[in-house]
Amino acid sequence: GRAEMGIFKADSVANTGVVTTNGAQFFTDIDVTFTMSGETDNGLTFGASVDLDEGGGTDNIQAGGVTAPGLSTQNRATGDNSDDGGATIFVSGAFGTVTMGDTDGALDWAMTEAGNVGNPGSIADDETSHAGYLGAYLDGSSDGQILRWDYTSGAFGVAVSLEDDNGSKAANTGVGYAIGFKYALDLSGTTVNFGLGYQKASDNGVGGATVNDAKATGVSVSATFANGLSAGVTYTDMKNMVNDKHYSIGLGYTTGAFSVHANYGKFTGQGTQVDVDGFGLAAAYDLGGGAVVHFGYGSGDTTNAAGTALVDTSKTMSLGLGLSF
Amino acid sequence: GRAEMGIFKADSVANTGVVTTNGAQFFTDIDVTFTMSGETDNGLTFGASVDLDEGGGTDNIQAGGVTAPGLSTQNRATGDNSDDGGATIFVSGAFGTVTMGDTDGALDWAMTEAGNVGNPGSIADDETSHAGYLGAYLDGSSDGQILRWDYTSGAFGVAVSLEDDNGSKAANTGVGYAIGFKYALDLSGTTVNFGLGYQKASDNGVGGATVNDAKATGVSVSATFANGLSAGVTYTDMKNMVNDKHYSIGLGYTTGAFSVHANYGKFTGQGTQVDVDGFGLAAAYDLGGGAVVHFGYGSGDTTNAAGTALVDTSKTMSLGLGLSF
Amino acid sequence: GRAEMGIFKADSVANTGVVTTNGAQFFTDIDVTFTMSGETDNGLTFGASVDLDEGGGTDNIQAGGVTAPGLSTQNRATGDNSDDGGATIFVSGAFGTVTMGDTDGALDWAMTEAGNVGNPGSIADDETSHAGYLGAYLDGSSDGQILRWDYTSGAFGVAVSLEDDNGSKAANTGVGYAIGFKYALDLSGTTVNFGLGYQKASDNGVGGATVNDAKATGVSVSATFANGLSAGVTYTDMKNMVNDKHYSIGLGYTTGAFSVHANYGKFTGQGTQVDVDGFGLAAAYDLGGGAVVHFGYGSGDTTNAAGTALVDTSKTMSLGLGLSF
Repeated sequence: GRAEMGIFKADSVANTGVVTTNGAQFFTDIDVTFTMSGETDNGLTFGASVDLDEGGGTDNIQAGGVTAPGLSTQNRATGDNSDDGGATIFVSGAFGTVTMGDTDGALDWAMTEAGNVGNPGSIADDETSHAGYLGAYLDGSSDGQILRWDYTSGAFGVAVSLEDDNGSKAANTGVGYAIGFKYALDLSGTTVNFGLGYQKASDNGVGGATVNDAKATGVSVSATFANGLSAGVTYTDMKNMVNDKHYSIGLGYTTGAFSVHANYGKFTGQGTQVDVDGFGLAAAYDLGGGAVVHFGYGSGDTTNAAGTALVDTSKTMSLGLGLSF
Repeated sequence: GRAEMGIFKADSVANTGVVTTNGAQFFTDIDVTFTMSGETDNGLTFGASVDLDEGGGTDNIQAGGVTAPGLSTQNRATGDNSDDGGATIFVSGAFGTVTMGDTDGALDWAMTEAGNVGNPGSIADDETSHAGYLGAYLDGSSDGQILRWDYTSGAFGVAVSLEDDNGSKAANTGVGYAIGFKYALDLSGTTVNFGLGYQKASDNGVGGATVNDAKATGVSVSATFANGLSAGVTYTDMKNMVNDKHYSIGLGYTTGAFSVHANYGKFTGQGTQVDVDGFGLAAAYDLGGGAVVHFGYGSGDTTNAAGTALVDTSKTMSLGLGLSF
Repeated sequence: GRAEMGIFKADSVANTGVVTTNGAQFFTDIDVTFTMSGETDNGLTFGASVDLDEGGGTDNIQAGGVTAPGLSTQNRATGDNSDDGGATIFVSGAFGTVTMGDTDGALDWAMTEAGNVGNPGSIADDETSHAGYLGAYLDGSSDGQILRWDYTSGAFGVAVSLEDDNGSKAANTGVGYAIGFKYALDLSGTTVNFGLGYQKASDNGVGGATVNDAKATGVSVSATFANGLSAGVTYTDMKNMVNDKHYSIGLGYTTGAFSVHANYGKFTGQGTQVDVDGFGLAAAYDLGGGAVVHFGYGSGDTTNAAGTALVDTSKTMSLGLGLSF
């Protein structure tokens, strides 16, 4: 399990220079993770995990104590079998690992995001939530229930994934898929990790940026050096989306109990869409035994509703203790 | 705990012959069960169990961040004390066992349903969800919060149960009750199980089939033979319900790691109501260690809204892995 | 964990003498508590706890399967980081203990409520839910997410707490705070516990009794005697609230497996508000091993909507088994 306590804050600075500040608020979060595993008679291993907050079924809503037609709560791991709801289930053997549920698609699996380069994390994830950050690629275009096969042999890894469109046969909807490759190159003691992948989004027919035939191709290169420094870059090319390209860079440094991380990312718009960028910072001091002091900061552009002009810069900050059990 | 992953599918065939197929979808489900037990100083045992998905209280619904009057989520085990919410609590001693919460009424306790005859189960429960299947008898006519006493002595068992009407004193509402008997007859090494019970539904005054004085009387006979075959039949007579009678037959066969099950059931309508029937199939191959490959199939009649004519046949299918931990 | 089963009942007697009774209902409740703890390298201890029913995030509500704008479920421990949601997190060291989340403010921490004097509890908490009972003081005026520091040295304890206003900068809103003191006086073998505290409510700007600058000052005195008797009194002075004062008395007695408790409390209205009082009773018989038979009773005044006249007396009762695991 994990618990976090501290404060967080969200402000903005308009392009005209007007600063809007909000008071800092208390921050508490708690996770209890249930992990289960087993092994078949012929040596396949299998397992599943779910968080406490992912329990709970799809409920009807009641109005005055009687079921209100049509209204329901969102689906969760234990409630809606056609949605992953946050649970992950896997079977592993000589053929590799097959994972189903709330897991990364093959593009996300292959790529080392800028925020995963030497990042000690923060309690409110400020450093990976800014407007210039790309983390999930085209996963979650439908309901995020993903089936992935991955296989690793020495320095080389490969994965293929599918994202369900919930069995829809409506026009312009279809299952999404992705393929990804990883390669770990040993350069006289320093490992350089390469990631490469391609993804076609699940078309869910509901509207929005990824309705019809959205695609992404990404590549990442990252390395951790003996002196505690780590660095990485990513580049993603997008098709049939409001953005055309995304690139990012991440840096991390660890010395003793202290870690610091920074990343910068930028989306290039297409047509009349403006470019959007942002950066994130995270610093941490490890008290040992699972307790870590965390600081996080994120800053990123916000646009008007049409996405055709920048409006202000959004800034978020958090400071607190992360406790792992 | 238990996790399931696979695919499922639901199709229909109209009486005119038109086939409607839906795409297969991914299926994931996960259960984490918390079981607790203890013993008093004078030797009574007691316990309780609840699933992860049964946690969570009755919540107010918020509109724009403010409580919306009258709206709430459905009650759950930990939220609404006047509803069982999925939790079961028992106390056991020389007097037998008293169980309260989400448990079987005495009729359901006594009867061996067709789907419980040598059935290895399926991930989507197709084989026990078809239109001809009767599983819960009159349990759940109100909120399903049941109090049952049962007592077993040698080959003979007896149970009495009550279902709460939530303290209602409205006209035509009342507590439901049931009584059930079990007898295990030993015929030269093969045990034949007899079940017999009677139930009067809880009248919840809300409308529907079981409003006023619904009653059911059921009998079941089942046996498991030394060669791996098992067979059972049930017959249920109903009063003050849209159905008049229900009968079903179940068969199961197990050999080594492989199990297969089939059941057929039929509801006989009364007045202008048509008869409705259906069948279910389940097959499973046990990989050992808690991992089982499951296939399930169900097929059953569907009627028009009035229930006076058959419209089509609904078919559901599932295939996947069931993992027990 | 803990499970409770039994029956409960709520009736009322109008001032004109008309008695309204409701049927007794079944009662089931279950709690599963997850407690986690750790220690840093330099000896700080830390921990967190959350209940099964406090898991679950803030969900969107779906209408016809699509997200309904603006509607959401209430926040829970694992879902909304700006709300405690029922979780408690602490860090403890030579400096005392810092607790954040669903915890008592410093006034509530210092005071021994009448219902905490030798009270064995009941399944429906009837004895601490009547109209004359004051339990949480001004905690929860905003969202109940509290930060408290407390420190104990020998017989003396001190605490300071803050309640968040969620970073609001709206007019007439502000963070709430409290300070409390405890002193344990040893009188020839009997310990007399004194509590004293002051609290200014968090102003949440939403309306209701505690909008603007509500304050409370409270004092409590309680003792447990060698013969099994315990007794306590409280007095609370309130400002800028519909009530002016509250006083209460609690008594408890334990002999062998049997315990009994009674309390009485009264709110004095101000302006045109009437006084409201009530009393509670609890009795318990311990079966050992964690199983206890509980009886609870509460009776208290109810007023008209304006709070200017008494309407009737509300009575609640519960009887059942409490099972601790």
